Amino acid sequence: MNDVLDRLSELLEQRKSADPASSYVAKLYAKGMDSILKKIGEEATETVIAAKGGNKEEIIYETADLWFHTLIMLAKADLKPSDVLAELARREGLSGIAEKNARPKE
Amino acid sequence: MNDVLDRLSELLEQRKSADPASSYVAKLYAKGMDSILKKIGEEATETVIAAKGGNKEEIIYETADLWFHTLIMLAKADLKPSDVLAELARREGLSGIAEKNARPKE
Amino acid sequence: MNDVLDRLSELLEQRKSADPASSYVAKLYAKGMDSILKKIGEEATETVIAAKGGNKEEIIYETADLWFHTLIMLAKADLKPSDVLAELARREGLSGIAEKNARPKE
Amino acid sequence: MNDVLDRLSELLEQRKSADPASSYVAKLYAKGMDSILKKIGEEATETVIAAKGGNKEEIIYETADLWFHTLIMLAKADLKPSDVLAELARREGLSGIAEKNARPKE
Repeated sequence: MNDVLDRLSELLEQRKSADPASSYVAKLYAKGMDSILKKIGEEATETVIAAKGGNKEEIIYETADLWFHTLIMLAKADLKPSDVLAELARREGLSGIAEKNARPKE
Repeated sequence: MNDVLDRLSELLEQRKSADPASSYVAKLYAKGMDSILKKIGEEATETVIAAKGGNKEEIIYETADLWFHTLIMLAKADLKPSDVLAELARREGLSGIAEKNARPKE
Repeated sequence: MNDVLDRLSELLEQRKSADPASSYVAKLYAKGMDSILKKIGEEATETVIAAKGGNKEEIIYETADLWFHTLIMLAKADLKPSDVLAELARREGLSGIAEKNARPKE
Repeated sequence: MNDVLDRLSELLEQRKSADPASSYVAKLYAKGMDSILKKIGEEATETVIAAKGGNKEEIIYETADLWFHTLIMLAKADLKPSDVLAELARREGLSGIAEKNARPKE
């Protein structure tokens, strides 16, 4: 399961050279970054609405939509999900120490 | 790198029982889902602004913030990143076929 | 010009009883609050993108879209633009004093 | 009530030359357009959450916040609320005819 983001990233890279008429993603690339960013705003709002509603299937579905469109944005900006995961890992390490120190003594 | 989401998910699960004063995440849990969702809206907007600006480091930083807060939301809703990755994998399979069929013959 | 919001509010009130097939607004009411809120998220993002881009016509256009959909949301919630304007007026008064006091003496 | 937007617009214009330390608005101007746009994203999300929650006072409060920050953005872009109201009035006219024509005959 853990390599899904990498596989999606490869797929999204390939679509960059595809005919805009051949797929949703190829069409979105052709429309440009602004169109991709509008989708991020839209899907973020749908994620918020789903989470506020509390239905687990909807939350999974909308979060998948949001992550998918951030992956398209990253590809458009010539970035990879591993760039973001590396940043998250870096923070986890830093934050692990910070939080350990901040934790009240027992 | 690929297990970063799982490791973060475990960490976020542990924080659920932590003193709200002990960390940013524990405090955000205590504030409740609405506060987490406000952060998702805020970070999505910051991601859009960063991508529109075009600075790669800022894009990575803001996307990490956005993904991090969606992970907190998933944990609060008793969901895991693997639920979202499974949904993305399911779509990738379906979409792979759909896009292959849609691709113009050479 | 100042009564545009009131006139729009009346118009939006009338549309509540219209056939959903008769107009964009009547259709959006029929779809329900979630659909209206998704539009607010979408139009807010488009306003951000337009303002970041700096084209004045686009900023006006997208802000009009955003305000229009907040008016639909208010109507759906049985509220009026004057409720929001009254809140803004109330703050302006309070804030006027607060800001005067906060201003450094010369 | 209808001139609240104009009065706020004048006030926001005056704040442009104020010491950033003198008020919230003057500080936000000094931080720049990106900071104003982040607030728009944040307040739009809070409006969505409030409307989804259904509490009328919260809806009014958050919509006022959203409109207020769009007014700051307009001022920063050297635009006025009347520019947006004129666009809405223009559409209302157009849309009035469009909707009349679209309405099913009785």
